[in-house]
Amino acid sequence: MENEKTFEEISAEIIALLDAKKYIRARDEILKINEVDTAELLEEIIEELGIEYAVILFRMLPKDVSVEVFSYLPPDDRLAIINVITDKELKYIIDELDFDDMIDVLEELPANIVDKILEKTTKEERKQINTFLNYPDRSAGSLMTPDYISLQKGMTVEAAMAHIKRVGMDSETIYTCYVKDQGRKLIGIVSLRALVIADSDARVADMLDEDMVYVNVYDDQEDVSEMFKKYGFLAIPVVDNEKRLVGIITVDDIFGVIEEEYNEDFERMAGVLDSGDAEYMDIGVFKHVWNRLPWLIFLMISAMVTGSIIRSFEVLLSNVISLAVYLPLLMGTGGNSGSQTATLVIRGMAVGNLELRDALRVLWKELRVSITIGFILSCLNFAKILLLDRESLVVAATVCISMLVIVTMAKCIGGMLPMLAKRVGIDPALMAAPMISSLTDLVSCITYFSLATIVLNT
Amino acid sequence: MENEKTFEEISAEIIALLDAKKYIRARDEILKINEVDTAELLEEIIEELGIEYAVILFRMLPKDVSVEVFSYLPPDDRLAIINVITDKELKYIIDELDFDDMIDVLEELPANIVDKILEKTTKEERKQINTFLNYPDRSAGSLMTPDYISLQKGMTVEAAMAHIKRVGMDSETIYTCYVKDQGRKLIGIVSLRALVIADSDARVADMLDEDMVYVNVYDDQEDVSEMFKKYGFLAIPVVDNEKRLVGIITVDDIFGVIEEEYNEDFERMAGVLDSGDAEYMDIGVFKHVWNRLPWLIFLMISAMVTGSIIRSFEVLLSNVISLAVYLPLLMGTGGNSGSQTATLVIRGMAVGNLELRDALRVLWKELRVSITIGFILSCLNFAKILLLDRESLVVAATVCISMLVIVTMAKCIGGMLPMLAKRVGIDPALMAAPMISSLTDLVSCITYFSLATIVLNT
Repeated sequence: MENEKTFEEISAEIIALLDAKKYIRARDEILKINEVDTAELLEEIIEELGIEYAVILFRMLPKDVSVEVFSYLPPDDRLAIINVITDKELKYIIDELDFDDMIDVLEELPANIVDKILEKTTKEERKQINTFLNYPDRSAGSLMTPDYISLQKGMTVEAAMAHIKRVGMDSETIYTCYVKDQGRKLIGIVSLRALVIADSDARVADMLDEDMVYVNVYDDQEDVSEMFKKYGFLAIPVVDNEKRLVGIITVDDIFGVIEEEYNEDFERMAGVLDSGDAEYMDIGVFKHVWNRLPWLIFLMISAMVTGSIIRSFEVLLSNVISLAVYLPLLMGTGGNSGSQTATLVIRGMAVGNLELRDALRVLWKELRVSITIGFILSCLNFAKILLLDRESLVVAATVCISMLVIVTMAKCIGGMLPMLAKRVGIDPALMAAPMISSLTDLVSCITYFSLATIVLNT
Repeated sequence: MENEKTFEEISAEIIALLDAKKYIRARDEILKINEVDTAELLEEIIEELGIEYAVILFRMLPKDVSVEVFSYLPPDDRLAIINVITDKELKYIIDELDFDDMIDVLEELPANIVDKILEKTTKEERKQINTFLNYPDRSAGSLMTPDYISLQKGMTVEAAMAHIKRVGMDSETIYTCYVKDQGRKLIGIVSLRALVIADSDARVADMLDEDMVYVNVYDDQEDVSEMFKKYGFLAIPVVDNEKRLVGIITVDDIFGVIEEEYNEDFERMAGVLDSGDAEYMDIGVFKHVWNRLPWLIFLMISAMVTGSIIRSFEVLLSNVISLAVYLPLLMGTGGNSGSQTATLVIRGMAVGNLELRDALRVLWKELRVSITIGFILSCLNFAKILLLDRESLVVAATVCISMLVIVTMAKCIGGMLPMLAKRVGIDPALMAAPMISSLTDLVSCITYFSLATIVLNT
């Protein structure tokens, strides 16, 4: 991790050099670091010294380095640079970017700039670019690149290697090659490993993997990332509905997908609408409000229902005011118990350990877990209420029996609701923490006051 | 996704064939599918027909296929198979497994079986295996494999390719090769792509990347996965404290790490102790209780404090009993508002968009967001309380002013607490939902009753 450790120092040094207008030395220092780090450094330069300094440096980098660095910049910094450089420089960048990065860049640019760029491409290119721009967001098509290596079935290994040598520079990966029939249908894949290990006069056909796994261009990106996780591939072919090969997705593009899906789950769990790729600081105040308000209102309405249940027990409550003291305890414990189970079940379903047919087994396990937990918590509370709070035995009994019932119900609801959601085709992640706790709040209130009515009236 | 779709059918077919004792035909069908899928099928066979059928089939597979399938089986199924096969078969599997898979298998086996296996290895092998078994769980060392390709700096491309062809079969990857000096120190890496594209009489030294990124053998697996995400590598070298190359980690092993870290975050957010790799169903009832109880007790204690605050306002509450009706509403909204912000800030810090130095900017943004949200929610409630609940203006005012204050405080706490945690070196994920909501419960209660005292006494 030496590189990681010294990066802060290096970047401070380079920024100092730039500030002192020692551009040549700054550039030489930059050329020693990885392009990903250079992009990070440029971000810092833009923030600390301003865009002019970043562009001066950007222009001094060797062309191929500058294009690669550009591809690693975040959208707003890309746009900032595009706004300052000449049309010619922009054209160069667009031409030299890997196809999938170019599409990403075009997707982020304002329409008038995209039109300006497309004007300068050939009709053929324009058609392909437009096809790629039109694949739905989050589809396999939006992730793929058409820059893969095609081999012929009849080629010898020697011929194949010569071909790879010739076109390898412009391909996204050379480590997996693809074989198509006359109709452009995918018939198999060959790994470079197989080619390197094979004798040079062997045929590509002999080492063809014809049972390859592939995805459809309209498949969801989450399914694609599941396949990478499951099979450990470096690349996966993408076909259209006629099984014609239209592109490939490489493993390095999957990390972004995993992070995006992960963010989405996280946000759902916290009751926030999906903010996509946008960073916290880049989202405006009103957009933040917009993303958070719907859940809060939904949960507020459910809390209003809970409130009206309390209201219906107003007489009971005014007779035994100390019942109110234990309400947060019971509602809180119910909510937490339920969301623990819900989280485990949702995760289990997401990673494929739990299926719908396991529902009864989950229920049986949660029943035992919750009764054990409920019993322990009840005993603790019983002692605390009698000895510390010096409440009457009936109040202690009411609270503790309620605790046991509430924990048990909350855990069973927490286990079953995500499964039910999946059964009827709703994303189980929507059944997470906020949903479960608002439901258990309701259940807790009704249970507690009903039990109190029974116990205290006898 | 055709493969995916037909997998269920294929597996049903093969299970039917086995059940009818048509082993040869079952094997032929199996050989048509990917080894990862075969492992999944074996799991199903063990579950539905029993281990004997799985072993019969396992023995009929070509040796190299059976070893690969074995490496994809879950731990308990591996153990089931090991318990039935002969020592000779076990020895073969252990010998043929990739080094990192072998270490994984050994780690899961009971000590007596591991001893039995190690007896049959050479002293040299035993030493290496023991070194690898001793790397701490979740360290880079526990993920790596020593099966990488070493090249000499002075080699021509032709010699390098010949070397790769010779040893490529036994290496974890051939796509990145490593160059060491006499002292086994890592001096650079060469990609197979560079070798394939270069002229055959070029020297390895000319295409050496000497500014490569590497990790230390004791680095945390999360840092390793961050580097894969950041740089998009296919493999990363692992060095010891003297920068000697001891192994490599390949990208396919990183997906498991990401999932594990993800699970951990998820569990922390729900207040469950880390269950590691264990699957929901494989965890016993008491272990489930053990994993969940600490958080529930911790949160229960905090709810008890909230309860005693309510108790201290008992007189007020018995005078205006309808105050209790709005308690769940205020506490719930406070908790949800706080955990929304906490989640966003924790995620922002985890993916590197938010730094500690952004604290004031986060506070400023949350302040504006929360006042907007608080104002909207207050207005909705004001109308509802006056018009639907037909409460007095003072009660409505008390609830709505409390709502505004509570939402604002909850969001500021939710934003600052994870940052504070990071500042003092605690994992911010521990500050998530349950923690935040128990804190905001306290704040909500105090705010509400204090305001009520002021407003209702005037």
